[in-house]
Amino acid sequence: MKESIVIVYERPELNDPIFIEGLPGIGLVGKLAADHLIKELGAKKFADLYSPHFLHQVLVKKDSTVDLMKNEFYYWKSPDEEHRDLIIITGDTQVPPTDSYGHFEVVGKMLDFVEQFGAREIITMGGFQVPELQGEPKVLGSVTHLELKEKYKDFPIFFREDEGGAIVGAAGLLLGIGKLRGMKGICLLGESLGYVVDAKAAKAVLSVVAQILGLEIDMSDLDERAKETEEILKKVQEMQKAMFEQQMPQPSTEEEDRGYL
Amino acid sequence: MKESIVIVYERPELNDPIFIEGLPGIGLVGKLAADHLIKELGAKKFADLYSPHFLHQVLVKKDSTVDLMKNEFYYWKSPDEEHRDLIIITGDTQVPPTDSYGHFEVVGKMLDFVEQFGAREIITMGGFQVPELQGEPKVLGSVTHLELKEKYKDFPIFFREDEGGAIVGAAGLLLGIGKLRGMKGICLLGESLGYVVDAKAAKAVLSVVAQILGLEIDMSDLDERAKETEEILKKVQEMQKAMFEQQMPQPSTEEEDRGYL
Amino acid sequence: MKESIVIVYERPELNDPIFIEGLPGIGLVGKLAADHLIKELGAKKFADLYSPHFLHQVLVKKDSTVDLMKNEFYYWKSPDEEHRDLIIITGDTQVPPTDSYGHFEVVGKMLDFVEQFGAREIITMGGFQVPELQGEPKVLGSVTHLELKEKYKDFPIFFREDEGGAIVGAAGLLLGIGKLRGMKGICLLGESLGYVVDAKAAKAVLSVVAQILGLEIDMSDLDERAKETEEILKKVQEMQKAMFEQQMPQPSTEEEDRGYL
Amino acid sequence: MKESIVIVYERPELNDPIFIEGLPGIGLVGKLAADHLIKELGAKKFADLYSPHFLHQVLVKKDSTVDLMKNEFYYWKSPDEEHRDLIIITGDTQVPPTDSYGHFEVVGKMLDFVEQFGAREIITMGGFQVPELQGEPKVLGSVTHLELKEKYKDFPIFFREDEGGAIVGAAGLLLGIGKLRGMKGICLLGESLGYVVDAKAAKAVLSVVAQILGLEIDMSDLDERAKETEEILKKVQEMQKAMFEQQMPQPSTEEEDRGYL
Repeated sequence: MKESIVIVYERPELNDPIFIEGLPGIGLVGKLAADHLIKELGAKKFADLYSPHFLHQVLVKKDSTVDLMKNEFYYWKSPDEEHRDLIIITGDTQVPPTDSYGHFEVVGKMLDFVEQFGAREIITMGGFQVPELQGEPKVLGSVTHLELKEKYKDFPIFFREDEGGAIVGAAGLLLGIGKLRGMKGICLLGESLGYVVDAKAAKAVLSVVAQILGLEIDMSDLDERAKETEEILKKVQEMQKAMFEQQMPQPSTEEEDRGYL
Repeated sequence: MKESIVIVYERPELNDPIFIEGLPGIGLVGKLAADHLIKELGAKKFADLYSPHFLHQVLVKKDSTVDLMKNEFYYWKSPDEEHRDLIIITGDTQVPPTDSYGHFEVVGKMLDFVEQFGAREIITMGGFQVPELQGEPKVLGSVTHLELKEKYKDFPIFFREDEGGAIVGAAGLLLGIGKLRGMKGICLLGESLGYVVDAKAAKAVLSVVAQILGLEIDMSDLDERAKETEEILKKVQEMQKAMFEQQMPQPSTEEEDRGYL
Repeated sequence: MKESIVIVYERPELNDPIFIEGLPGIGLVGKLAADHLIKELGAKKFADLYSPHFLHQVLVKKDSTVDLMKNEFYYWKSPDEEHRDLIIITGDTQVPPTDSYGHFEVVGKMLDFVEQFGAREIITMGGFQVPELQGEPKVLGSVTHLELKEKYKDFPIFFREDEGGAIVGAAGLLLGIGKLRGMKGICLLGESLGYVVDAKAAKAVLSVVAQILGLEIDMSDLDERAKETEEILKKVQEMQKAMFEQQMPQPSTEEEDRGYL
Repeated sequence: MKESIVIVYERPELNDPIFIEGLPGIGLVGKLAADHLIKELGAKKFADLYSPHFLHQVLVKKDSTVDLMKNEFYYWKSPDEEHRDLIIITGDTQVPPTDSYGHFEVVGKMLDFVEQFGAREIITMGGFQVPELQGEPKVLGSVTHLELKEKYKDFPIFFREDEGGAIVGAAGLLLGIGKLRGMKGICLLGESLGYVVDAKAAKAVLSVVAQILGLEIDMSDLDERAKETEEILKKVQEMQKAMFEQQMPQPSTEEEDRGYL
């Protein structure tokens, strides 16, 4: 595997779908929101993305089977004219933060794929780490084009004005690279302390997304989902810490090529 | 050398061989088991894999000759109809944990190679680090397909249920990438404290593999082999620690391009 | 996006333009100088460079819109025969210092681009970190060819004689790679403590550049620009520190593939 | 520049030349020996190797001109039938130890180049770090083929028997990759404390090389050369430490994509 691949199980006919992203990040906010949306809508999986830029490991499932780390595409076909069709991406992982190049490669592949189904609009979801929360978590918005700020001005979104702030990973790159391809999009980040799997922030973000989409989403299972996810993720995280730690062994002395003497 | 290469010394005709992996990892469990299996069966080396993703060094042998780090393929042709032909891979090294991309590239090349000989089934061996051992080391199993759990249910394997656990490196990727190619496989990890070359864990794993293969493997030399290996490996490890340590020099002050200020 | 791309908005006809570089580095000296020169001359943007070697993030602007990190090309057409046409590059970022390969790729693309407009001469600007300043910051010069030292001998430039000193990043590579392509150039570094956005050093460098170009540049706004930039950059920097810090989690214990045991 | 390039100034006709390597490493032993050999023989430079895997910087020379970091090829044509023609490589740098892939790429290019001139034999030189020296530094040897150990058995070489020891960087890879191409070679490492530019170890290594080549090399200038080199190298080293240190900033808090939570 020398570049990311998308394995496609079905080629649904979608009508101008919105592409919604929720991958692991701060407080797992985006992933929780995406997983919940998929479950509540009964969205259908139609493709998996695998990448040599993801960690070189498989994850074990409860039934003892293993799979490469992956991102998963789901679609939801609206039953009426009132709502938009959706493509939703979620997954186990993002490319590690040490591999900028890999991030660009993977996000490029995601956009190549959803463009085949006519996607021209993107909503990305995630967490925004704050040192303390005052009341309910706010949802911070940023957009690819000024017109979207106008379009979404009546929703409970705090549009960011922190010049020089950044959005790291797929939530940012999908908008940045998408914009170069003529796509439009909004990034919605829920305020989060970031230390736990943050169901509250996920609810805040998802409820804005639901309003934008004109959908009713029952949030009652979200807390429980958060708890389950937390347990699983804790294991994954420990494993990955252990792996990175191996890269920094203690000093010792030996031969030829001390690098740059 | 811009990608991994396999240098082939012989092209044996094998009948539906099982591909068995034992490369360096926790407690050197997998490598010890593979080396012992090769020795006891009198398996024959038929190919070497070299990779620009392995460390940029040669290893010195007792006779003062040097070789690039490599992985080695052995085959064993069953003398009867009762047993399966085998391809076994062992070696000095795996790709460093900092290079996920390299891991995918190398494992892809391994599978390309063994597929040429008809391999469709994989057994990977390794160690599973535990903080303390209670009694004999258990052998933990995970599989590519549920049907294999059924198939192996009468062997002394503790099938993993630790959702979110991972199998890092070739032992995991061979199953994960193999599965995408329609191959089936099982990963067998022996519990190990992980600090030493762990002959006990290797014995535990290899005895399960022997049962699966219906082979009698004499384990009496395994302890001695472990001791020899330990001495050699200690040197390799010190060397590699020294090399990684060079990547983190002390602060100093100088010119242009402080990165991202 | 698998390699750096330049998106071109206009193809001005330029006459033997000088290519001037000022990208983020020590004390932001080069970037400040380039931004100021662009503003004072009213230079016009005609292209953006995007790269998969830049950080995998978008930056937020005051109006809540986001963009990939980028480098920007401006041109200035001289209104008379007395002055040279200019191409000026500035931007949000350089390739991270961990990715030498990316630096070479991006700088190669820059040179490919400006060569299309006939550029054969380069001036790079930046900061030179010193532990303390004695009086006004000096401007240190180094050149691709000895003849340039002669040519610029009457300007207030302290030509470097610190054999083995280095110029890291685009300010150095543009000269080094440019030289291999038959281009000529000078690097001008202003002494700086390096801890702040250093308007004083930028003024020193830009005033030498203005003398070389025979231009009058009003420096009065430079201090204010420095202050604004400082605020924005502080945020960017914190973000990036946070991201790099994630690469070094605390120890933990787990499975297979401890790297190089 | 997307891969290493060799810029060739002359294409000498050489007769079965020996390829001798001395690049920066422990105690700068190899580089010192190569530089001295070049000077004493009056060997002629005929090519430079540049690489995008070298550090992204230029080095300043005493005359204020700058150049990319590079490796340099020299040749020496024997005036009689008694001695062998030589190609000698020395240079400012090797690929950083974090980039194994780059090491393989660069060494591959070196061998591609010297093969064009008929080189089939290699001598690599370097330092071997020891905690303390007992008497004069010994010269440790390792070879690609057993027959070379026999061939060189009457020279003052201590053939290594430290199974599992390694030779890192070009000194090792040239032998390892060369061997795969049917070339033969010996690596000679001088014992060194490794902390200083080690003229003593360089003398020890070079005197063995001179004996092998049947050449008289006057060593009297080597100490002085070591002192000069030390001063220059110290600067380079400080610079590089500073650059690597930038990769490890202090913690901070911010947004989306905490890596793997």
